[in-house]
Formats: sequence, structure tokens, C-alpha cells
Amino acid sequence: MSDYFSVLKKDSNNRARLGRLVTSHGVIETPAFMPVGTQGTVKAVLPRDLREMGCQILLGNTYHLYLRPGHETIRNLGGLHSFMGWDGPILTDSGGYQVFSLAARRKISEQGACFQSHLDGSTHLLTPEKAVEIQEALGSDIAMVLDECIPHDAARRYVRDSTERTLRWAERCQRARGRKDQLMFGIIQGGMHEDLRRWCAEEMAPMPFEGFAVGGLGVGEGEELLRSISAFTASLLPDERPRYLMGVGRPEDILSAVRAGFDLFDCVIPTRNGRNGTLFTSSGKLSIKRAEFAQDPRPLDENCRCYTCSQFSRAYLRHLFMAGEILASQLNSLHNLYFYHRIMAGCREALRAGRAVLWDPQGTSAGSS
Amino acid sequence: MSDYFSVLKKDSNNRARLGRLVTSHGVIETPAFMPVGTQGTVKAVLPRDLREMGCQILLGNTYHLYLRPGHETIRNLGGLHSFMGWDGPILTDSGGYQVFSLAARRKISEQGACFQSHLDGSTHLLTPEKAVEIQEALGSDIAMVLDECIPHDAARRYVRDSTERTLRWAERCQRARGRKDQLMFGIIQGGMHEDLRRWCAEEMAPMPFEGFAVGGLGVGEGEELLRSISAFTASLLPDERPRYLMGVGRPEDILSAVRAGFDLFDCVIPTRNGRNGTLFTSSGKLSIKRAEFAQDPRPLDENCRCYTCSQFSRAYLRHLFMAGEILASQLNSLHNLYFYHRIMAGCREALRAGRAVLWDPQGTSAGSS
Repeated sequence: MSDYFSVLKKDSNNRARLGRLVTSHGVIETPAFMPVGTQGTVKAVLPRDLREMGCQILLGNTYHLYLRPGHETIRNLGGLHSFMGWDGPILTDSGGYQVFSLAARRKISEQGACFQSHLDGSTHLLTPEKAVEIQEALGSDIAMVLDECIPHDAARRYVRDSTERTLRWAERCQRARGRKDQLMFGIIQGGMHEDLRRWCAEEMAPMPFEGFAVGGLGVGEGEELLRSISAFTASLLPDERPRYLMGVGRPEDILSAVRAGFDLFDCVIPTRNGRNGTLFTSSGKLSIKRAEFAQDPRPLDENCRCYTCSQFSRAYLRHLFMAGEILASQLNSLHNLYFYHRIMAGCREALRAGRAVLWDPQGTSAGSS
Repeated sequence: MSDYFSVLKKDSNNRARLGRLVTSHGVIETPAFMPVGTQGTVKAVLPRDLREMGCQILLGNTYHLYLRPGHETIRNLGGLHSFMGWDGPILTDSGGYQVFSLAARRKISEQGACFQSHLDGSTHLLTPEKAVEIQEALGSDIAMVLDECIPHDAARRYVRDSTERTLRWAERCQRARGRKDQLMFGIIQGGMHEDLRRWCAEEMAPMPFEGFAVGGLGVGEGEELLRSISAFTASLLPDERPRYLMGVGRPEDILSAVRAGFDLFDCVIPTRNGRNGTLFTSSGKLSIKRAEFAQDPRPLDENCRCYTCSQFSRAYLRHLFMAGEILASQLNSLHNLYFYHRIMAGCREALRAGRAVLWDPQGTSAGSS
């Protein structure tokens, strides 16, 4: 596990870097975006279409897979890769964020997070050890420690106590590790307080994690705090480890975070927006249901080479959406994910060529200046 | 338009034949199955995946496309092929069947079918001339005449009058034709009465249609009547024209109809069943939601080479279905359509090799004895 990550090139003007992350199921060129495959599927997209668009790694949700179909079922079926028909790298979260955002009647204690399933109301206890056990059963390439995702407006005292507990949970996760073929990332919490973020990072950095994530952002704190806290926290993390900004976000947030030194990203925005008919283009977002597109023969984005843009008009995509056709979700999700991957590929190209990583959605000189 | 259809080979024991149907968008080897693309999409399946599974021709629904997005819109966007990203042959129905099955408050007169849209209650008049105009705007390769689909239990007097009107409408459709690049098929009605079917076929056969369809079957009359009336009617139709059994049906019905001399088929069963979790396999249908599949590592059908069967287990497909994932509809529809196409390919192989066309869902010697 010693040379699983290398920084190949750095931007001279900021902290952006081109990296190479080696996992049991293949190599990831960073910066990279991870589509979210919550219930063992990236919604409405076939694995082969993910591969075709240049997707390198998926994210799976421990909370959902633990509740349904159950991690033992997935283990018995050969692990999550085999189960979902994706032979590339997979990162699993720890379930902590979903306990925070989805479960009913959760209660956090030193032992772990007790919660009721959003599916059937059954009661479960997610401890750090359990989070590791589940992720080892799933067989992901990168596991995350159990943390508590703190509301952005939590009182400082609560943030401090919770962050301290997250540190203890991180140690327990380390001790619980059994698989040699799985990387594990620690998660830096600390709310909106720079001193608590610094303290958490300083305590976590010496632990033998193969990477570090920044959590608790993109939860309603606003763009300014998101950018300042994420950049500040990234600057505290070791250069020789991959950095992952969890659950963020919009393309412009990701670009900003790449410049701050982050390597990995995930977000449901491209797929969720796709299903809702909000589409990313090089000239901004558009809502495909608008009447102005009813007769529009142009592709969604003339600078895009995805399957959707190469085959279909805005008028057709609007028709599918208005008619409630499943194909709308398929084509829209394909396009939005392609858009995200194109941005990341542009960042990597710019870094490789020694150009600045800039927001350039035209794609003609993707991500470069 | 003279040599658009040729019979290449005939079964010596029954009326089954191997044929070749030439259209403006390509050649169709018959017998062939047409997936139904009601609203300008085969539900949940990308055009490129249809192509890959060996799909040769799609069916589009005039009624739906006329109401939304409108045939003028589709014409302005370059026609239905361009609109839906399918460059192979398309057959459009006339809208008659949907007026019968979907529209509210329909009223049939000599002039045409007056009906209210199931979408917004607006009133429309579908005449034979209008049905031709719409299909010419859509630009399908094969258009169908407007007919009235009669309830299977209609009184004989009504059937006779309606069939007579269908004949007059067929003449009006012929007179209304403008496109040289579009074939047109007549439709034989006559309900469950052999003498009326014979009369309709004898009146229709001399008209200059490029093919003939048998309509008004598969509407609740039962398997025995379906088979006897369809086989009887097929026997009355000219050998040198393609024969199309509309809206039928189950794989075993199609096989039986191939032996009766039919060349073309369409049905929503494979896609609708797929979305509902009912899947065709070489050992029979199965309902993927059943608990017995929760841990089942086997593919749906071990004899199937479709994408779904090559990549995913029954346990995974059950999980997707139970979790309400869109991917369930995608993978199930892919498999069921592949199953139908494999049966048709098996029929063609058997005919080419001079073997009998038999029901052989094992696929090891697909369609052959």
C-alpha cells in the first residue's frame, strides 16, 4: 500500500495537482469525479455507458446497501463489483452522512449511531466497527471511516465534542480493518471553525490512512464558507495523500476545489438534475421542459460529444421529458455525467500541459487557459 | 416499389417463409419482430442498444405522436427517424387502434373517428386522409391504413358494417398517398367471422397495397380464435406480399403465426412485462420480485447472451426492481426484447436451413428441430 498514490505534476500558481491513485480494481487519474451509485446503480445509466464516458470510479452508499439488499447478501454474491457489474474501482462511504440526512430518529452516542431505517422503521446501530465490517463485505477499493456529519449551524460546543468523537471513531475504524486490498480514508470534520478543522486535521494526519476526506461541507453553509473552509482544510492535509471533498458539488465548486488541492469528488447533482430535466451545457444550465425548446433542432450543447448530444435534439429531449418517458432520465443523466467527466478530463489535461486549471465549459480548450 | 418484397424460402410443412422486405431505411429479414416505440421511444431502451440486439424495424404510434409533440413538429425536425435517433426502418400504425383503446368519447362515422385526447380532452377528427397525412409527415417507411378495430364480441351486423367502412377507408387512404418512398399496408378486419374475413381479404387484395395486415385480433377473443382466425385470414392473402399480424403477442402466438405465414409482428409485451418485472427465459416466464431470487447468483437465463444476462444476477435484478430503480426497467426491457429477437432469428435460421420452425426457447438450436 506504499506507492498507491503519486503526484505527477503540480500547478505552479495554486495547489492543483495531477495524480495517480492505484486501487485493487484499477488506476484512477486524478482529479476525478465519482458518480454516485446509491443503491448499487448509478440511476438510469448502464455500467458500460459509464465506462464509455470515461468514468474511472463509482461511489456506493453503505447505508442503502446495508439496509437493502444487505451487505451479507452482496458478500455472498461476490462483492459489490460483481453484484453491480462494475469492475472498476469503487469507493464506499461509511453510512454516516445518510444516517444524518435520511434515517428517522437517529441518536448518536460514543458507541455509534442508532437509527431507524427510512424503509421499514427497523432499528439499527452503526458503530465504527460495523461500518468497516459492512464496507469489507461490500469489498470496495476505498472505505471511509464512520463520522458524524454536523449541521452547518451547530453550536461550537457540539461541533467540538462531535469532532473529538469522530477522531475516536477514526481510531476504532483503523483498529477494525481486516482487508489488505482496501484503502481507508479518514474524514476531517470541525464544522465552520478553522481552529477545529486544524485540530482535527493535525490529529488525523498522523494516523495510517491512505487518504483524507473533508466532510460536513455542502450542507447549506453557503458558497463562501464552503470555499474558504474546504481550501483551508486541504492546506492542512499531507501532500502525499489523496484528498477527497465529499458531496461537493456544482461544476464551479469542483473547479475551485481542484485549485485548492482536492483530488476526488462525488455528487448526486449530475444524475438528480438529469432526472429533473436540468442540464449542464457549456453556456450554462438549462431546464429542458421550457417551451422554447419545443421546436429546437439543436443538440443540448454543441460543444459536447456525448451520445445524447450526438444523436438527439433539444426538441426530442423536451418531448421525452414532457411525456414522462424513462429515456429522458437515461439521456439526461448520460449527458450531465459526461459533462462532469469532461470538466475533470480538462483539468487533468491542463495540469499535464502545465496550463492553469480554469473554468472553461466551452470545452474547446477544456479546463485550460 | 415493385421488388420491395421477396420470399426467399418456404417451409415445406406449413406456410412459414423467409423473406426480405426492402424499405427506404434498409432491408428487413422476415419473419421479424418490431419493438413498439409509442411516444418516439422504445421505453427505457437506447436506439443503439436496439441496433445491437439485432432489432431491424420499430413501430411508432401515430395517435400518440399526433397528439404530442405533433406530426408537424416532427416533420419540421426532419421526420421521425431523425427525431428519435433511429436510422433503420419504421412502421407507423394509423392511430385507429389507439382511438379504440385509449381515447375518451370516440365516435365513428363515415368521415372518420372523432375522439377526445386522453392527454387534455381536446377533440380531434382522424379521417383516412388525415391518417395518411400524419404518417407522411412522420416519414415512416411503412404506413398503415386507417381502420376500425372492432371489439371481439361485437354483433355480426356491426362487424359487417364496420368492415365495409374499413374497406372504403382503405380506398381513401390509397387515394390520399403522396410519398413515393413510403410503403402502405391494408388491414383486413372482419371480426371473428370467417366469411367476413374472407370477404374483406378478397376486396382488399386487389388494391395496390405493398402488404397486408390482419387486425382486430389479440383483443380478448382467446387463444383458439386468435390462432384460427389469424391462420385462416393469412391463407387468403397473396403470397407475394408481406403479411403483418398486428399487436400479437406472446412468443408462442408469434411462432404459431409464423407457421401460418405471417412475416411481421409487434407487441408491447416484452417492454411492458420488462417494466413490471416479468421476464422471459428459455424455461418459461419468471417474476423477478419473488423472494426466491434474493440470493440467486445465476443470470436470468443461462442460454441468453444479452447484456443483462452476461453481466448481472437474478439477485441484482430483483434488488433493482424492489428498490424501484430505473435500471430495472432498462435491463429487463433489454433482456425481454433480446429474447424476442432471438426467437425471430431462430425462425429465420431454421427456414434458411430448411428445418421446421418450432418453439425452442432453449436457444441451443434456436427455432429449429
